[in-house]
Amino acid sequence: MAKKQTSKKKSASRRVTAGGAVKDTVGLITAEARDIETKILKRGKPALHLPLRALANVKYSVKKGHFEMKGKSKERTLTVNTVKTFAQTLRMMSLSKELVEEDDIASKREAYYVSKNWGDARFVEQPESDTVMDDLEALFAVNREQLGFIPEEKGGDVAGQLVVVDRDRDTGATLKIDCTKFGSGAYSIPISVEHLGFETKASFILVIETSAMFQRLVKHNYWKTANCILVSMGGVPTRACRRFIRRLADEKKIPVYVFVDGDPYGFMNIYRTLKVGSGNAAHLNEYFCVPQARFLGVTPRDITDYELPTHPLTEIDVKRARDAIKNDPFVQHHRDWQRALEKLISMGVRAEQQALAKHGLNYVIETYLPEKLAHPERFLP
Amino acid sequence: MAKKQTSKKKSASRRVTAGGAVKDTVGLITAEARDIETKILKRGKPALHLPLRALANVKYSVKKGHFEMKGKSKERTLTVNTVKTFAQTLRMMSLSKELVEEDDIASKREAYYVSKNWGDARFVEQPESDTVMDDLEALFAVNREQLGFIPEEKGGDVAGQLVVVDRDRDTGATLKIDCTKFGSGAYSIPISVEHLGFETKASFILVIETSAMFQRLVKHNYWKTANCILVSMGGVPTRACRRFIRRLADEKKIPVYVFVDGDPYGFMNIYRTLKVGSGNAAHLNEYFCVPQARFLGVTPRDITDYELPTHPLTEIDVKRARDAIKNDPFVQHHRDWQRALEKLISMGVRAEQQALAKHGLNYVIETYLPEKLAHPERFLP
Repeated sequence: MAKKQTSKKKSASRRVTAGGAVKDTVGLITAEARDIETKILKRGKPALHLPLRALANVKYSVKKGHFEMKGKSKERTLTVNTVKTFAQTLRMMSLSKELVEEDDIASKREAYYVSKNWGDARFVEQPESDTVMDDLEALFAVNREQLGFIPEEKGGDVAGQLVVVDRDRDTGATLKIDCTKFGSGAYSIPISVEHLGFETKASFILVIETSAMFQRLVKHNYWKTANCILVSMGGVPTRACRRFIRRLADEKKIPVYVFVDGDPYGFMNIYRTLKVGSGNAAHLNEYFCVPQARFLGVTPRDITDYELPTHPLTEIDVKRARDAIKNDPFVQHHRDWQRALEKLISMGVRAEQQALAKHGLNYVIETYLPEKLAHPERFLP
Repeated sequence: MAKKQTSKKKSASRRVTAGGAVKDTVGLITAEARDIETKILKRGKPALHLPLRALANVKYSVKKGHFEMKGKSKERTLTVNTVKTFAQTLRMMSLSKELVEEDDIASKREAYYVSKNWGDARFVEQPESDTVMDDLEALFAVNREQLGFIPEEKGGDVAGQLVVVDRDRDTGATLKIDCTKFGSGAYSIPISVEHLGFETKASFILVIETSAMFQRLVKHNYWKTANCILVSMGGVPTRACRRFIRRLADEKKIPVYVFVDGDPYGFMNIYRTLKVGSGNAAHLNEYFCVPQARFLGVTPRDITDYELPTHPLTEIDVKRARDAIKNDPFVQHHRDWQRALEKLISMGVRAEQQALAKHGLNYVIETYLPEKLAHPERFLP
C-alpha cells in the first residue's frame, strides 16, 4: 500500500519519510477510504486494520538502532458498538486529507476543537482524539506531522554552517535561511520540519543541552572555528528538534555529537531519547530517533580528568541510573554505557556542562571541546 | 553617578537603558571601586550602599506603569563579619567589568562556577552568588544583562515585519536579520538583547501565548496581511522576551497587543507579568515590563460572543482570580480587570485560544483577529 518514490520532489501531498523516500499521504488516505466505500457498496462490513501500539508488539532493532513494531494488528470493524469511533476515524482521515491538500496544519488541540462541529461524532475529551490520531499514524506508517497534525510545543535553536531551505507560502519562492547570519540570535526550528531542505559543508552537528551553553558558543562564533552546526535542545528535545537533526544528519551524512550535563538525566532522558527514541511511542521512533548520535560529554571520566566542581547524586539520580542498567534495552546492549553509569554511581556525584567555567569562561571553547573533538572514537555510543 | 547619554552609539561598555539612554557600566563599576580604594587609603572603613530589595521598599507607580523602589537602602560596611560578602561583591564587580570590556557573557550558573577559583571568596551554593548579583543590579540601577550576566533560560520567537540589527562579533560588520524571510521557521530571541537595534514599519506587535497558535499565524503569513510583528512567548515570557518586546515597542513607538488563553493564568501569570512585571523583582520592572501592552483576548466576553467551547474553572483558577481581585495592585487599579475576573468566576468556565478552531481552523485569521483589531479601544488595559 505504501507508494514509495525515490524522487526528492516535494509538494503539499508528498512528504519525505524517515529514510528519504516520499509517501503520498493523500493517496494513502484516498486508497483506504475507497476500500471502505467498496466494501459498503457490496453490503459488506468495512474494517480498518490498525497495528497494535503496545510494548508486546515491540522489538529492539540493533541494526536500525531503535525500537520497532512487530506485525500484530487489531481490527476495527464497523458494528453498532464501534460506530462512533469508526466515524471519528474517518472524519480524522478526512481532516488530514484536507490539511495536506491545502498545505495547512492543525495542532492536536485544534483537531480536538474542530471535532466540536462534527455533531454526534465530536470528541468529548482530547485524549480520545489523540488516540485516533495515533491510530492513523500507525495505520499509514507515517508520522503525525506527515498527516498535517503538529504537536503543541516548539523547541530547538540552530546557529552555524547551515542553510535551511524553505519556501514562501504565498509566492512559492524558495527561501534560503543562512544560519551564519543570526548574530547573537538563532534560527528557531518550526513545529513541523518535513518540508525543509538543507545545504551545508559542516563537519559535524553539535547538539547542546542548555540554552546558556549554546548562547556562549554562539556568542563566540564557535561554529566558525569548528566548522559545525550548533543545535540547542533546551532540555529534553521536542519531536521537531529530534526530527530536524535526524533529517539533516541523514540527508547530509554528517556526524552528530551530543554535549549534555554529566548526570543520569542528561544520559538517559536527554541523550538516549534523542538517539533511540522513547519506549512508549515505538511506532514513531523510525522518524524521531537519531541513531548516528554519539556522546561527547560530560562523561563520568571528564569529571575526574577536568577536575570539575560536582554536586552529590540525588536518590532520584541513583534510581534512574540503576533502572537504566537493569531495564533499558539500549543500555543493556552497550557495555560502555553500563560502565559509565556504574562509574557515576560509585563516584556519587554529577557535574554540569557549565562546571567547566571553573577553569575560565571560555575554557570550554579553547580547551575542552578541541581536546574531545580530537578523539571522536572515544565518544560513548 | 549614572552617566546618561542620548546617543544611540553602542559599544561593549555602553548599554542602552530602559528609557533609551545609555549607561556606562564600566564607568559605574570603576567609580564605585575608586571610592572604596580612596576610603581604604585614608584608613577609613569602605562601605557599599545597596538599595533595599524588599516589598517594604516598593511602590506602584501608576504613571510609569510598574512597581518601583522607594529610597531605602542598606549599608554593607567592611567589618570582620562582612569581609567575605564584601570581597565576593568586589570580585563579582570585577568579573562584570571583565565581561563588559571583553564583550563576553556569563550565565548566573557560570558566574557561580567561576567563583570556585576565588579561594576563600568562593561561593558554596548558587543562591549566594545570585544574591550578590541582585545587589549589584540594585547598586548600579542596571539590569543583570547590562552587567554581562545572562539568565539560564531562552525563549521567544519572532516572525514578520521586522529587521533585527545585530553585529558579527569577529568582523564587527552589521547584520540585518529580516524576520520576513524565515518561512515556517522564526528568529529565536537571544538570551541578552541589550545590543540589538530594530527597523520596522509594522503597525503593531502581536504577542501570542502558545507556540501552536504562533505557528498557525506564521504558516499563513498573517504578519503580511495584518502588517505586524508576531512574537511567541511559549507560556510565561522569559526576561529576554519581555525585554525584547519592551525595547522594540519603546524604540519604534508601536502598540503591543496580547493574545492569550481566556483563563486566570493567561490573564495574571502571563499578561500581567508581561505588562507590569512581577512583585518580587521590583528593582527590575523598569526594564522587564511592557507598559504599552493591551489585552486583545481571549476575554470572558469573547467566550460568549464567539460561542467558544469551554472547560470548567478549576479550584486553583478560582483562587487565582479571587486573589488577584483582592491583592493585586494592578487589578485594584483597573476596574475593567476586576469586572473581567468577576465575570469569569461567575461564568465558571475558561476557554483557550485554540478553541476558536471550532468554527474552522482559520477562523482566527479570517474573522476573530480582524474583528478584534478593528476596535483596539475595546481591549482590556
